[in-house]
Amino acid sequence: MKNLNKIKIRNAKPSDHQSIISVIIDWWGGRDLRSSVPKLLLIHFSPTCFVAFKNSELCGFLIGFFSQKYSKEGYIHFVGIHPEFRKSGLAKILYQKFYDVCLQDSRNIVRSCTAPINKLSIGFHTKMGFSIEPGPSEIEGVPITTGYLSDKDQMVLFKKILNTR
Amino acid sequence: MKNLNKIKIRNAKPSDHQSIISVIIDWWGGRDLRSSVPKLLLIHFSPTCFVAFKNSELCGFLIGFFSQKYSKEGYIHFVGIHPEFRKSGLAKILYQKFYDVCLQDSRNIVRSCTAPINKLSIGFHTKMGFSIEPGPSEIEGVPITTGYLSDKDQMVLFKKILNTR
Repeated sequence: MKNLNKIKIRNAKPSDHQSIISVIIDWWGGRDLRSSVPKLLLIHFSPTCFVAFKNSELCGFLIGFFSQKYSKEGYIHFVGIHPEFRKSGLAKILYQKFYDVCLQDSRNIVRSCTAPINKLSIGFHTKMGFSIEPGPSEIEGVPITTGYLSDKDQMVLFKKILNTR
Repeated sequence: MKNLNKIKIRNAKPSDHQSIISVIIDWWGGRDLRSSVPKLLLIHFSPTCFVAFKNSELCGFLIGFFSQKYSKEGYIHFVGIHPEFRKSGLAKILYQKFYDVCLQDSRNIVRSCTAPINKLSIGFHTKMGFSIEPGPSEIEGVPITTGYLSDKDQMVLFKKILNTR
């Protein structure tokens, strides 16, 4: 595992799109989730999107936005961490960057979700203080919500209340 | 062509997702653009998304959002009109609904884009007072921007300045 020395984190820009897209299949172990990060998000939601580079190598990114329906909520849409930087604390730093911009915009609720198969993500969110929203069913003891991101999907929905300062 | 009597327009809801998704292939003449309307948009951006129904039939929809990077801008992401309601004035009404919410949020710039092949959309936007952003190349006299929505695409970018009241 690599350490976080010399890691630089900044807001994402549209020109980062190619870097992000080009790592997704590798970082997700072959799953092609590239369409989950349209460039439009980096154009219009860059204040809530972050990239981490070490030297010129992308180590992680977080794509989030402020809900325009729920004025107290921020949503973390997609997060990727280079396999060699997993468990390094980088995801936690990216989440905290997102919490900071939420709080600056008077938002104290952060939501995210993952597929029930993604134990790593469920463990991470639980450790980060997210609760899991109650759902009509359970998989291995984890509450599942149906039809959240599409009409028949099963997802684990996370919610965290931020401490306002 | 059907008329607009009894058309009801309201903000879109997450529960409209299935209705929208189920018409896309048909309304776009076989093109599968369903992934362009993730349900997440209807959850968190419903104040800028509209659906039009006549009786219980979907006649049109507009999916838009406020830019979080550019505080004066609204972006129209995806618009669909039932083939029998084209040239009925419905698209114009949906655009005006979007303009209204932009102006209420002190936004006076509206952006959108389309593929160069979509002459209908280019004609509609021109008629609606959109200008076409200058680009490095042209197709049949229309300026084209490269790499806007993805890294190698060619798109026609529209911009309209709204009259503030």
